[in-house]
Amino acid sequence: MLFAVKMDVALPQDLDADVRADTLAREKAYSQQLQRDGEWVSIWRIVGQYSNLSIFDVRDNERLHEILWNLPLFPYMNIEVSPLAQHPSDISAV
Amino acid sequence: MLFAVKMDVALPQDLDADVRADTLAREKAYSQQLQRDGEWVSIWRIVGQYSNLSIFDVRDNERLHEILWNLPLFPYMNIEVSPLAQHPSDISAV
Amino acid sequence: MLFAVKMDVALPQDLDADVRADTLAREKAYSQQLQRDGEWVSIWRIVGQYSNLSIFDVRDNERLHEILWNLPLFPYMNIEVSPLAQHPSDISAV
Amino acid sequence: MLFAVKMDVALPQDLDADVRADTLAREKAYSQQLQRDGEWVSIWRIVGQYSNLSIFDVRDNERLHEILWNLPLFPYMNIEVSPLAQHPSDISAV
Amino acid sequence: MLFAVKMDVALPQDLDADVRADTLAREKAYSQQLQRDGEWVSIWRIVGQYSNLSIFDVRDNERLHEILWNLPLFPYMNIEVSPLAQHPSDISAV
Amino acid sequence: MLFAVKMDVALPQDLDADVRADTLAREKAYSQQLQRDGEWVSIWRIVGQYSNLSIFDVRDNERLHEILWNLPLFPYMNIEVSPLAQHPSDISAV
Amino acid sequence: MLFAVKMDVALPQDLDADVRADTLAREKAYSQQLQRDGEWVSIWRIVGQYSNLSIFDVRDNERLHEILWNLPLFPYMNIEVSPLAQHPSDISAV
Amino acid sequence: MLFAVKMDVALPQDLDADVRADTLAREKAYSQQLQRDGEWVSIWRIVGQYSNLSIFDVRDNERLHEILWNLPLFPYMNIEVSPLAQHPSDISAV
Amino acid sequence: MLFAVKMDVALPQDLDADVRADTLAREKAYSQQLQRDGEWVSIWRIVGQYSNLSIFDVRDNERLHEILWNLPLFPYMNIEVSPLAQHPSDISAV
Amino acid sequence: MLFAVKMDVALPQDLDADVRADTLAREKAYSQQLQRDGEWVSIWRIVGQYSNLSIFDVRDNERLHEILWNLPLFPYMNIEVSPLAQHPSDISAV
Repeated sequence: MLFAVKMDVALPQDLDADVRADTLAREKAYSQQLQRDGEWVSIWRIVGQYSNLSIFDVRDNERLHEILWNLPLFPYMNIEVSPLAQHPSDISAV
Repeated sequence: MLFAVKMDVALPQDLDADVRADTLAREKAYSQQLQRDGEWVSIWRIVGQYSNLSIFDVRDNERLHEILWNLPLFPYMNIEVSPLAQHPSDISAV
Repeated sequence: MLFAVKMDVALPQDLDADVRADTLAREKAYSQQLQRDGEWVSIWRIVGQYSNLSIFDVRDNERLHEILWNLPLFPYMNIEVSPLAQHPSDISAV
Repeated sequence: MLFAVKMDVALPQDLDADVRADTLAREKAYSQQLQRDGEWVSIWRIVGQYSNLSIFDVRDNERLHEILWNLPLFPYMNIEVSPLAQHPSDISAV
Repeated sequence: MLFAVKMDVALPQDLDADVRADTLAREKAYSQQLQRDGEWVSIWRIVGQYSNLSIFDVRDNERLHEILWNLPLFPYMNIEVSPLAQHPSDISAV
Repeated sequence: MLFAVKMDVALPQDLDADVRADTLAREKAYSQQLQRDGEWVSIWRIVGQYSNLSIFDVRDNERLHEILWNLPLFPYMNIEVSPLAQHPSDISAV
Repeated sequence: MLFAVKMDVALPQDLDADVRADTLAREKAYSQQLQRDGEWVSIWRIVGQYSNLSIFDVRDNERLHEILWNLPLFPYMNIEVSPLAQHPSDISAV
Repeated sequence: MLFAVKMDVALPQDLDADVRADTLAREKAYSQQLQRDGEWVSIWRIVGQYSNLSIFDVRDNERLHEILWNLPLFPYMNIEVSPLAQHPSDISAV
Repeated sequence: MLFAVKMDVALPQDLDADVRADTLAREKAYSQQLQRDGEWVSIWRIVGQYSNLSIFDVRDNERLHEILWNLPLFPYMNIEVSPLAQHPSDISAV
Repeated sequence: MLFAVKMDVALPQDLDADVRADTLAREKAYSQQLQRDGEWVSIWRIVGQYSNLSIFDVRDNERLHEILWNLPLFPYMNIEVSPLAQHPSDISAV
C-alpha cells in the first residue's frame, strides 16, 4: 500500500552539535535500513528546501505511523501524508 | 532531471459529454506514450481526490513545460511543480 | 484500516431538480449499503455545514478510493482524507 | 451531544524530561478515565502527526470546555472543535 | 447553550428578482420569529460585508443545525459555528 | 458603537509564575470594571480555546483602541476587531 | 472617526455593456460626492489591481456601513475594513 | 510617488527594558523627522493591533527601501508594501 | 525603477474562439512593443503554469499601473507586484 | 536552465554579533563569486523586506540545490524555487 510523505525539517538553531550529528547519523541509518527492507521505496530532496518527498510501501496505516513516529528527526519535522492508489492511466498496472 | 508534479483536475459540470470523453481518452493516450518513452516515470491517484501525483524525468525545464502545457486536460488543471534532487540518504545513489 | 474523511458538498444552484433528487437518493442508498456492509463505520453532519465527517474501515487505500470515487455526489464534493492509527491511550485497544 | 475534536501537540524541545514524562502520564490517565466514563467516545492517532482525532459525547458546551481546558497537555495543544449532528443517511438513527 | 455563528451571504448575480425578493422576505420572517422565540439572541451586520454575526441560545447541537439548515438563504451562505462557554471573568455569571 | 473582538491568548511557557498570576488577576479586574461600566458588553469563552469572543459598546475607535491596548494580557494576545452595525432583521431595533 | 477600506472589484465577464458603463458612472459620481462631502477622505488605485485603498472619516460604524452597502459596485466587491486610531508618533496630533 | 505600508510590530517578550525604551524612542524620533520632511505622509494605529498603516511619498523604490530598512524597529517588524497610483475617481487629481 | 510582476492567466472556458485568438495576438504585440521600448525587461514562463514572471523598468508607479491596466489579458489575470531595489551584494551595482 | 528563487531571511534576535557579521560577509562573498561565474544571474532586494528575488542559470536541479544548500544564510532562510521556461512572447528568444 503506497503513501506519499513530505517531511520538512526544522532543527533548532541552538541544538547541541553532538546531539545534532548523532541524530542525523541515526536518521540516515534508519532511512537506509527501511529502504533496503523495501518499505521506504523512494526518497528525494526538494530543491532549495530542508525537505524530502518520499514514497512508502507498507502493510497498513499502523505500520506507516510506526515508521514515521520513530524517525530520529520526528520531533523536528512537519509531516504530510497522502494515501495513494493506482492511477487508471498507469501502464505498469496489470 | 526529476520533478514531482501534482495535478488537480476540475472538469466543468456542463462540459459536453463527447468533448469530455474525447479529452479523457486523449489524456490517457498522451500520458501512456510519455510513460513508455520514460519521461513520465510514475503516476499515482491521490485517494479521494480527482488528482494525481507524478514523477517526471526530463532533459530540462523547457521539456517539462512542453509536456505539461500540452496535456489535453491542462485547461482544467491546477498544477504544482517541485524540482527534485538526489537525497544524501538515498541508497540507490552511486 | 481506519480513515477519517470529511466531505463538503456544493451542489450547483442551477442543477436540474430531478437530477438533484435522483443524485441525493442514490447517495443515500449508496452510503447506507456501505454502512450495512461495515465499511462506512460512522457518518455525522457537521453543524451548520453541508458537510459530513465519516469514519471508514476498509481493506486498503485502493478500496477507500473506489468507494469515494463512486459516490454519486463525488463531482460536487471537496474531500479530505486522514489515515488513522490506534492511539496509545485508547482503552479499547487490546 | 457529539463533538469532533482535533488536538495537535507541540511539546517544547527543552521541556524538562521529568515534567514531560509526568505530563504524558497524567494525560493518558485523564483520557482513559473519560473514556471509561463514556464522555470521550473515540480517540485515534492521525498517521504521521503528533495529533489525535477524538469524538466526545457530553452534556453541553460547558462540559466539553471543562474537559478540554483541564487536559494536562492543554498548554501545548492546538485544538479544533466541530459540533456534530445526526446525519440523515445514518442507519443507526432511530 | 450558546453559539456564535458568522454567516456570509453570496447571492448569484443572475438570481431571478422575484426569487431573490421572496427569499429575502422569508429569511427576515424566519429570523425574526426565532428572535421572538429567544433562540436567536443577537444579530449584527458586519460593517462593509454582506455578513452577520449572530448569537444563538439553543437546546443542543441538533437544534442549532436544524435552525441553520432551514435558513431560506442557506444555499447561498458560508457559515462558521463557534460553541461558546461561560467566561470566568463574566460578571453576569452567578 | 458596537464591535466584536476575538482575543486569542498565548502565554509563554516560561513566564514566571508570580508574573503570570498577577497578570491574570489584573486582566480579570480590568475586564470586570469595564463590564460594570457598560463598555464591555459581553464576554464568552470559545470552547476548547484559550480565547474569548467579546462585544464592546464604545464611544469611538479611539476608545476601543485605548481599552484593548491597556489589557494586561495585550502583549500575549492576538486580537481581531470587527465593527458592527444594526442588522435590518434585528427585532430590537426601533 | 477614521477607517481604512480596501475594495477589490470583480466584474462578471458577461456583464451587459450598458449595465457595466452605467454602474461605473454611478460609482464614480457616488464616490466623488462623498469626497466633496468630506467623508471619503482619500482614494488610491493599488498598482496592477482592480482595487482601491480608501480612507473614510465618518460619524460612526452605522454611517460607514450605509456608505459601503450603497456603493453601486458593492455586489461585485470584496471589502476589508480596518478601524484606525491616532498613532502616538503622528506629528499632526494635537 | 505614493506607497501604502503596513507595519506589524512583535517585540520579543524578553527584550531588555532599556533596549526597548531606547528603540521605541529612536523609532518615534525617526518617524517624526520623516513626517516633517514630507516623506512619511500619514501614520495611523490599527485598532487593537500593535500595527500601523502609513502612506509614504518618496522619490523612488530605492528611497522607500532605505527608509524602511533603517527603521529602529525593523528587526521586529513584518512589513507589507503596496505601490499606489492615482485613482480615476479622485477629485483632487488635476 | 524595477518591479517584479507575476501574472496568472485564467481564460474562461467558454470564451469565443475568435475573441480569444484576437486577445492573445494583441497581448503578444503589446508585450513585445514594451520589450522593444525597454520597459518590459524580462518575461519568463513559470513551468507548468499559465503564468509569467516579468521584470519591468519604469519611470514610476503611475506608468507601471498604466502598462498593466492596459494589458489585453488584464480582465483575465491575477497580478502580484513587488517593488525592487538594488541588493547590496549585486556586483553590477556601481 | 533558469530558476527564480525568493529568499526570506530571519536572523535570530540573539545571534552572536561576530557570528552574524561573519555569516553575512561569507554570504556576500559566496553570492558575488557565483554572480561572477554566471550562475547567479540577477539579485534584487524586495522593498521593505529582508528578502531577495534572484534568477539562477544552472546546469540542472542538482546544481541549484547544491548552491542553495551551501548558502551561509541557508539555516536562517525560507526559500521558494520556481522553474522557468522561455515565454512565447519573449523577443530575445531566437
